[in-house]
Amino acid sequence: MEQFLDEIKPIMEEQLVQSINDLNFPASLKDSMIYSLEAGGKRIRPMLLLATLRGFNQPLELGYDIASAIEMIHTYSLIHDDLPAMDDDDLRRGKPTNHKVFGEATAILAGDALLTHSFERIANATLSPVQIVRLIKELAIASGPEGMIGGQVADMEGENKKLSLEELTYIHQHKTGDLLTYAVVAGGIIAGASEEEIFHLKEFAQELGLVFQIKDDLLDIEGDIELIGKPVGSDEENNKSTYPSLLGIENTREKLEEHTELALAHLNKVDMNSQLLKAITDYVKNRNH
Amino acid sequence: MEQFLDEIKPIMEEQLVQSINDLNFPASLKDSMIYSLEAGGKRIRPMLLLATLRGFNQPLELGYDIASAIEMIHTYSLIHDDLPAMDDDDLRRGKPTNHKVFGEATAILAGDALLTHSFERIANATLSPVQIVRLIKELAIASGPEGMIGGQVADMEGENKKLSLEELTYIHQHKTGDLLTYAVVAGGIIAGASEEEIFHLKEFAQELGLVFQIKDDLLDIEGDIELIGKPVGSDEENNKSTYPSLLGIENTREKLEEHTELALAHLNKVDMNSQLLKAITDYVKNRNH
Repeated sequence: MEQFLDEIKPIMEEQLVQSINDLNFPASLKDSMIYSLEAGGKRIRPMLLLATLRGFNQPLELGYDIASAIEMIHTYSLIHDDLPAMDDDDLRRGKPTNHKVFGEATAILAGDALLTHSFERIANATLSPVQIVRLIKELAIASGPEGMIGGQVADMEGENKKLSLEELTYIHQHKTGDLLTYAVVAGGIIAGASEEEIFHLKEFAQELGLVFQIKDDLLDIEGDIELIGKPVGSDEENNKSTYPSLLGIENTREKLEEHTELALAHLNKVDMNSQLLKAITDYVKNRNH
Repeated sequence: MEQFLDEIKPIMEEQLVQSINDLNFPASLKDSMIYSLEAGGKRIRPMLLLATLRGFNQPLELGYDIASAIEMIHTYSLIHDDLPAMDDDDLRRGKPTNHKVFGEATAILAGDALLTHSFERIANATLSPVQIVRLIKELAIASGPEGMIGGQVADMEGENKKLSLEELTYIHQHKTGDLLTYAVVAGGIIAGASEEEIFHLKEFAQELGLVFQIKDDLLDIEGDIELIGKPVGSDEENNKSTYPSLLGIENTREKLEEHTELALAHLNKVDMNSQLLKAITDYVKNRNH
């Protein structure tokens, strides 16, 4: 996995900004968009898409446009989430947030522009029109009101409330899960996977998203402050509903195992070399930060 | 034209909210999106698209999805423009603005959701995949950083500055012109017009957009306060660059004639029944509000 990341990261950093650099529009807006695209981040979504493509033995180039589009959507959502009217954050990954550097108006518009341009990028991909229409439709669903934005609204409305397990799962599935899932599904669509394979890829990725979130909650309790970069126990102090607060630690650990098993079971039903996706699953489950 | 408007308006009002009502997502977000979609407006963009389709003797149903998508984009841009960080408006068409009713966070997300859903709506249209990809690509360009959003940024940066005619034209062409132009071009794409016809439709619509803006500026000076709904001379008082402030009234009136002629000349090169589009041009040029 490390080797794969080293292979794709420099390519993705370049791909991400290329189609925007090529356009002709006001410099302040362009600077603002590129500032947030280049602000780092683990590029997990592009990695998932490209790892899926590699598993189907397809050239990675086929996925660069869609991987870039997904990361643009992820980036716009962070810019808007950080705004004073939302989470009001001054820092993101150790750097001043977009609106702190460019002002609120430009930050709102840079988010809008990244969202809009992501669809242009997909429409320009060198794939068949049928594939492009499907990729656009699924991305709009995953990042739209029934997906990421719906999850964000549910999260806002659930603050300082005791949530049910169902409500907590709704938030995670949509706020972060749907776009992660889309990355894997998009890899399958680009590779020409069958509908049955796409079904299992989707189930795999949904389970992986839950594993990611459950592990996050556990790290908040059991993690090393140096490694996780925030005080241990901060969720509890912030009165945040988490899997451990709803289920207890032991049951949460069991859930982690359970969803990992489910993820791998779905993956095994797909006719591909799933070595990389399995390594990613293993990493997500066992990481210490 | 009046008769055509009476025919399509009730259909458009219903079409606009239908695909959103059918989705399952948090009620506060849905209410906020529908509030602004139903807040009225002249539905000029849908009308232009449907009038173009009618001119090609095509069934109007073919255009409902794209016309709805355009109006969603227009509506999201108004929600975001009204935000405190942007124009900070409390009222829009006599009703409280979206963020006044639903709060800033929900208003930002409702705008994002309308923008995202507009692409889903197009991807679901019953047109060929080749048409859908083209319609999505052109919409993303018209409403993205090189289009509407770029125009909005240029407008913000030009406030309280004396602009050149070139700068003023850039703002109008992109901030409002590109989406109006897209509406006409989309009608041509859906109707299967030739590339040459689409070229002339595009030129026609760009000229029509200028006629619209020049007339707006003239009405601000010569109009009847009762009819235009704002004090006569308010642009001058707000230190706004306008065509008359740059060219003088006489030259501006000449420009109005000139661009109307150009619009009609392009329309005459398209093999269609252009009666409706001509009536719309005539109305835009001669309206008194």
